[in-house]
Amino acid sequence: MKFLYKLNQIAKASHSLLCIGLDTDLKLIPELLLKTSDPLFEFNKRIIKTTSDLVCAYKPNLAFYEACGTAGWEALKKTIRFIPRNIVIILDGKRGDIGNTSKMYARALFDELKGDAVTLNPYLGQDSIAAFSDYKDKFGFILCLTSNPGAVDLQLLKVGKQYVYEKIARKVKNWNKNRNLGLVVGATFPEQLKKIRKIAPELPILIPGLGTQGGDLEKSVKYSLPDSKRIAIFNVSRTVIYASQDKDFDLRAREKALEIRNQINQFL
Amino acid sequence: MKFLYKLNQIAKASHSLLCIGLDTDLKLIPELLLKTSDPLFEFNKRIIKTTSDLVCAYKPNLAFYEACGTAGWEALKKTIRFIPRNIVIILDGKRGDIGNTSKMYARALFDELKGDAVTLNPYLGQDSIAAFSDYKDKFGFILCLTSNPGAVDLQLLKVGKQYVYEKIARKVKNWNKNRNLGLVVGATFPEQLKKIRKIAPELPILIPGLGTQGGDLEKSVKYSLPDSKRIAIFNVSRTVIYASQDKDFDLRAREKALEIRNQINQFL
Repeated sequence: MKFLYKLNQIAKASHSLLCIGLDTDLKLIPELLLKTSDPLFEFNKRIIKTTSDLVCAYKPNLAFYEACGTAGWEALKKTIRFIPRNIVIILDGKRGDIGNTSKMYARALFDELKGDAVTLNPYLGQDSIAAFSDYKDKFGFILCLTSNPGAVDLQLLKVGKQYVYEKIARKVKNWNKNRNLGLVVGATFPEQLKKIRKIAPELPILIPGLGTQGGDLEKSVKYSLPDSKRIAIFNVSRTVIYASQDKDFDLRAREKALEIRNQINQFL
Repeated sequence: MKFLYKLNQIAKASHSLLCIGLDTDLKLIPELLLKTSDPLFEFNKRIIKTTSDLVCAYKPNLAFYEACGTAGWEALKKTIRFIPRNIVIILDGKRGDIGNTSKMYARALFDELKGDAVTLNPYLGQDSIAAFSDYKDKFGFILCLTSNPGAVDLQLLKVGKQYVYEKIARKVKNWNKNRNLGLVVGATFPEQLKKIRKIAPELPILIPGLGTQGGDLEKSVKYSLPDSKRIAIFNVSRTVIYASQDKDFDLRAREKALEIRNQINQFL
């Protein structure tokens, strides 16, 4: 099944454009889970159980699992298997390498881990992306303008009259032969998001940087979705999953997810 | 022990600036190994046994291990433990993410996997690199100009009078407060390597793209090491490790490694 079809179906069913980022950190999850045999998975399972009717996607952040080695990798696989099949899984690893290596990453993320989509880094150019977009039913969100302070170092440099991030948006349009590429644009740059939407009206956008990072939800929704033909999803990680450290952390995460899901819908 | 001290010691001991890339692919290793319980590790073990006196570094390419899931991760850990302690281990994952996520990648690569150095992608800017350079005894080689065709898409764009890759070389100089950052420059761009060496005489350079990718070894050596104070290492992956598919593949890999090590020394 094509990614965008799957995304559209679940977004309708859940009335939701919310993606929850599973940045699951042993140092931040409730202490009571540390006694279990697989704390990362136990935490994710409880978060998924209480929020799965409120989201269109989950986005496991690969770094957090890799930091726990083999155990982390196993927890990630169990988490992916536990996510209901109709919900989109975006594996956030910001990968990108020369062609033959990118093929191996694509195999890792799509074949081995069974992700529906990935995040990709454009620094190595078209051949680094092609290995992923060759999987026609899968999807790649390419970093365009990221939510962090370091975005100024390269992404906000000017190439002639255009910023690097604008160049990337245009390149991705050209690379998008299989219609399975989109962009990552941080909610911390709403005005630039507006420009990017004009440059690439047809590209789906994944928008992180909400919540802890302080991005502007209202502007992000309005600028990325100026009309009903556009596609964008909104990621929140820490603000939802670490809403509480108490026993009922999963219910508190649900409350937060519900609140943000409804806010997004209100701004549509 | 500081990375550059370790590198200097082993380079002297082995009379070698050769790094062997462990891009170990189940589809390319000799068939006879597929019957063993851990083919990836078995292959690496035999390559390391016959080449360890000829190299200064091994560079496992993370994609190839991730493509095999948990088994790949385990093979990677075993490989890292098997590499003699005085040889430098560069974990090639081209990572880079917002600060709090980069911290987790640094934990994965330095604490969990025990790499001495990593390759990093500069697209997300300074805070994505800082999490790695905070490990003062470790080292980060930052992508500057890569060996693949896609380098033209972003790295060879012009920002004012400078190319993006030149900008990155200058940024890395500024980010290098802990003196533990260097650059990745592909051997397929020798003239640009010469310019980069002028921009950043003090930065160590990791040079891939030799062998299969057709980079120019003589020019790469001469331009990256104009005098004895400069530091550069030269990576060859497929040309060495897949020198033969026969039973004696490890000895044939040794022959190839010896040949390239000696060529490098000859051009010095």
